[in-house]
Amino acid sequence: MWIPLYSSLIALGTLVILALIVLRQDPGNRTMQDISRRIERGAMAFLRREYGTICIAALIVFTLLLFVKVQTAVAFILGSSASGLAGFIGMWMATKSNARTTQAATRSTDQALFVAFTGGSVMGMAVVGLALLGIYIVFTRLNPESLTGYALGASFIALFARVGGGIYTKSADMGADLVGKVEKDLPEDDPRNPAAIADNVGDNVGDVAGLGADILESFVGSVVAGIILMVGISMELMRIPLMIAGAGIIASIIGIFAVQVMRGISAQKQLMTGSLLATVLTAVASYFIFRNFGVEFMGFKGIYGPYIALMTGLVSGVVVGFTSEFYTSNRYAPTRKLAESCQSGAMVAVVNGLAVGMASTAIPIVTIGVSILVSYHYSGLYGVAMAALGMLAVTGFTVSMDAYGPIADNAAGISEMSKLDKEVRTRVSALDAVGNTTAAIGKGFAIGSAAFATLGLFAAYTQTARLGTIDVLNPVVIVGICIGAMLPYLISSVLFAGVSGGAYEMVKEVQRQFKERPGILKGGEEPDSDRCIDISTRAALKSMLKPGLIVVMSPVIMGFVLGSAALAGFLLGALSTGIPLALQMGNSGGSMDNAKKYIEEGHFGGKGSDAHHAAVVGDCVGDPLKDTVGPSINILLKLMSIISLVLAAHFPANGLFH
Amino acid sequence: MWIPLYSSLIALGTLVILALIVLRQDPGNRTMQDISRRIERGAMAFLRREYGTICIAALIVFTLLLFVKVQTAVAFILGSSASGLAGFIGMWMATKSNARTTQAATRSTDQALFVAFTGGSVMGMAVVGLALLGIYIVFTRLNPESLTGYALGASFIALFARVGGGIYTKSADMGADLVGKVEKDLPEDDPRNPAAIADNVGDNVGDVAGLGADILESFVGSVVAGIILMVGISMELMRIPLMIAGAGIIASIIGIFAVQVMRGISAQKQLMTGSLLATVLTAVASYFIFRNFGVEFMGFKGIYGPYIALMTGLVSGVVVGFTSEFYTSNRYAPTRKLAESCQSGAMVAVVNGLAVGMASTAIPIVTIGVSILVSYHYSGLYGVAMAALGMLAVTGFTVSMDAYGPIADNAAGISEMSKLDKEVRTRVSALDAVGNTTAAIGKGFAIGSAAFATLGLFAAYTQTARLGTIDVLNPVVIVGICIGAMLPYLISSVLFAGVSGGAYEMVKEVQRQFKERPGILKGGEEPDSDRCIDISTRAALKSMLKPGLIVVMSPVIMGFVLGSAALAGFLLGALSTGIPLALQMGNSGGSMDNAKKYIEEGHFGGKGSDAHHAAVVGDCVGDPLKDTVGPSINILLKLMSIISLVLAAHFPANGLFH
Repeated sequence: MWIPLYSSLIALGTLVILALIVLRQDPGNRTMQDISRRIERGAMAFLRREYGTICIAALIVFTLLLFVKVQTAVAFILGSSASGLAGFIGMWMATKSNARTTQAATRSTDQALFVAFTGGSVMGMAVVGLALLGIYIVFTRLNPESLTGYALGASFIALFARVGGGIYTKSADMGADLVGKVEKDLPEDDPRNPAAIADNVGDNVGDVAGLGADILESFVGSVVAGIILMVGISMELMRIPLMIAGAGIIASIIGIFAVQVMRGISAQKQLMTGSLLATVLTAVASYFIFRNFGVEFMGFKGIYGPYIALMTGLVSGVVVGFTSEFYTSNRYAPTRKLAESCQSGAMVAVVNGLAVGMASTAIPIVTIGVSILVSYHYSGLYGVAMAALGMLAVTGFTVSMDAYGPIADNAAGISEMSKLDKEVRTRVSALDAVGNTTAAIGKGFAIGSAAFATLGLFAAYTQTARLGTIDVLNPVVIVGICIGAMLPYLISSVLFAGVSGGAYEMVKEVQRQFKERPGILKGGEEPDSDRCIDISTRAALKSMLKPGLIVVMSPVIMGFVLGSAALAGFLLGALSTGIPLALQMGNSGGSMDNAKKYIEEGHFGGKGSDAHHAAVVGDCVGDPLKDTVGPSINILLKLMSIISLVLAAHFPANGLFH
Repeated sequence: MWIPLYSSLIALGTLVILALIVLRQDPGNRTMQDISRRIERGAMAFLRREYGTICIAALIVFTLLLFVKVQTAVAFILGSSASGLAGFIGMWMATKSNARTTQAATRSTDQALFVAFTGGSVMGMAVVGLALLGIYIVFTRLNPESLTGYALGASFIALFARVGGGIYTKSADMGADLVGKVEKDLPEDDPRNPAAIADNVGDNVGDVAGLGADILESFVGSVVAGIILMVGISMELMRIPLMIAGAGIIASIIGIFAVQVMRGISAQKQLMTGSLLATVLTAVASYFIFRNFGVEFMGFKGIYGPYIALMTGLVSGVVVGFTSEFYTSNRYAPTRKLAESCQSGAMVAVVNGLAVGMASTAIPIVTIGVSILVSYHYSGLYGVAMAALGMLAVTGFTVSMDAYGPIADNAAGISEMSKLDKEVRTRVSALDAVGNTTAAIGKGFAIGSAAFATLGLFAAYTQTARLGTIDVLNPVVIVGICIGAMLPYLISSVLFAGVSGGAYEMVKEVQRQFKERPGILKGGEEPDSDRCIDISTRAALKSMLKPGLIVVMSPVIMGFVLGSAALAGFLLGALSTGIPLALQMGNSGGSMDNAKKYIEEGHFGGKGSDAHHAAVVGDCVGDPLKDTVGPSINILLKLMSIISLVLAAHFPANGLFH
């Protein structure tokens, strides 16, 4: 049991070292520092207000949980603190790294990559270090069962971080684009655009803090599911998920340092090599963990059974990630064809963009299906949890790579806004392009990991609720499936309304500023970016409560009214629509974004052509799909499963209809 | 057993009378006759070529079915003939009614409604008369089990009619709009637009033949499911669905004649009164059928058990239909708010349009859920089939009302193209507006009925496959659910590609004609509409094979590879995503369409304003959603269920993975 403890402490130590490395870098000239400080201030102001709201909600849940079990309630507070703290550290670091990355780019691309990736790695270490430390504490000081409360806490923060962050970032982004790009023909990140700073704040709020909380939740969920399934069955097997998570952290740290010492090859290759290294090390270490500590295996096929399940998850993660890249990158046919079809106008662009996302659902879902079959075949429900863990073991590295994206994006924004040399801007925007690829893979990974974590939690739920069989021919199960399947649609509609409401406010504000103070566009006057930040903040806080309430309450109502079997159907129904919907939205949005970029590179008429205008519309439609609604569905699935798991023992078996 | 036979013969007799009434009407002046004849020629040419393709595919299926069972194969041919013939008669009549409706409008609105509705009623009578006659023949001359083959035949035609018709109509419509309205600022149905005739042909091909085949399939499916569930259990209960269907036909005929004798109240009210009358008569007649013929009820709660189930379905149908109207009509808040948000531009319009559809899924799905619970509670799986039948009993009237819409739409087109008086055009377009409402209700009804028919067929499948329990914790069931849930997305992406490919060809052709022959736009030269018709026809035929193959093969592969339990999961997964997806698409499209119309009425700047341009983009995106992809999902669900039912006895229980 020293592995999880020491590896999480090592992660936190590494975090400090990495943070010191970033802080020692040159923060750039006065303009850059000034912009960076405004982004930091906006992001922190949002986080403070968001956490304020969350605190109240968390206290209510805490109070309710006290009636369920005191330990669960305490673990809940620990889980939410771990997630909240990780988000805070990661985002603070990201806002410290952006201008430093831009400044480093004045020297070389390698140097800039070093700074951006180091900044991102702080987030990676914060996520896995804090998450695993918390799990270790609950496991050893409270009791293993209380881990459900811990996972609920992490899930709870993730809900607000993802939903709030998603609405913040897209209302700012769409607002900035709708007036800036479409009406006034300003370039991206133009300093005259009052919403430009809010847009950059949004990258941190949504893509760093939101994504981090999302994957932290999956990480915790997969570890906890593996443990809960073995409660009362095997102490050995309960410890294994903890050890594998710990080994994954060490492997991730090695991968991170490997990226930092590599020189002279492309950024993309450096990141991929690091990722491969971390993955292979985790696979090897897991093998020895199973061989040395997995003494008893309850009829699973030898020690290889759970190990094969673990490897299945690891491989599926890679397949799902790269499918996302295939469908969204403009180096492949789907997005290039989409770009070509933009020549027929905005409607065709939107329709085809939606179609690309729909087509992209097939491979990941079949892959997930196959790995469920394989992992279950080799070691039952525990195998499914192992597959989830396999996918998430290298979370430390994955989050580092994902958090790198928005830092590079911010750096590109700062280089534009502070009007640096063309060469520097080219360097930073090359890193930004790599960041888009890692972001696409990261999004696919977030969905895939959510699917596996949900399955693991679902397995734990059915076992805890003592559901021997859940018969699909039981009408309450069918009804559960149908209503569960509808829920992601309902939540999506609420989120869309939140984003477009926020964007509408933002558009009005930017238009007002341009109209009342014509000096802004001419270049003499400073735009009032604080008001824009405030609008996004208020839109996000206002719009996150309603979906939060629906997500939290619906499994509770379902469980108490229709019973625990119907609730199982409900969770499965939500999973069955949630995964394709999230994949479709993520990949539609990504493909539309990159089709636009492909046209901007000069294809099909290039910038300013009809095809480009169509692509811009497509991109704007795709933005909330990929950055707000799609990712929120991940959380929805996990949170509903974890709530069901926490309350599993309390639901009536047959509900009120028997 | 005389009820089903005589009522179907009465329906066919009524059909002849109604057709003669329409043909006796004045077909209008030479221009009108000429346009109507070109629409008729285009529609018939498409139907011939479509039926040619279908014949080959049907022969292949027939040959394969011979290996399953000879009677099933024969019933398959009967089922496809009934559906094909109904489509042919209905569409032929619709093309005869359009100009006559326009001409009748020169006298009065009442007169025009009379002609259009009578024309539509021919389709209604053809659908129920032929469908029930065929069922009667198979039931009495072959054997009840072979009805699965009959339903498969009807389903098979519906697939091609819906998919082919949907692609035809939207590639023509989008092609006509993208060049005509967006580029050249021509009004709808301008005679100079070469694609205008193809667009009107599309209304007949998609909205008459396609919708008719779709609802015919639901009608057959619900009757057959009720019968199959009672095979070997109760001869009495097997006959009841036939009798109720027969009673529904007679009630529908009374409703139709009631509409025709009503005068002096609005078209909307006339149709609603007729619908209510038919529904109430069916409810009353069913009560007596259950009381007099439902002698034995196997422990169901008295004779009232199945009757309550039937009523549940009837009421749900009304709720689902009116929810569609609430979300899509511009008399209610959702569409008005959508219209308002169009002021923020095309992106917001599209995003909010998608959101309206998503929000609209909640009420129908909860309604369907409640009625499953109630009907199952009162009479088990047979009750679920009864609920389906309750929803579909008044099909005769519903199809008449639905087919009225495209006739009125065509009539409006003809009045534009033949440049009639403003007063006449106003009258016809008022009828057209009523048609949009009935079409919205009809679409909701088509989805709701598909859901119920699928559930009925699913119940029959699980019973025929002798699946005692289907355990959700069995991993193959989970995999089945996940893959089934993905399938509607995959099919949607293929259909989108078909429509946008066709629209792209159409845009190029229209642009070419305008460019090469500038006389067209000036008004001297005739556009070459035959080439446009040919493009839509080829696009439709080419694009319907791939989705057809996926839909037909996937349940077969699933059943043989993963076994019959996994297939049950698969069907349920497809249902769980298919229903919300179809509802979302239908209602998003309808709402966007009517938001545009609301703006055109003068709100938020009216025609030509920025809001209007945004709404036009939204409408174009919504068009393929509501008229091609959404409706095709209905067929997908039903066809996959019926294929599973036909082969139910042949699938291995556990598949290859055990």
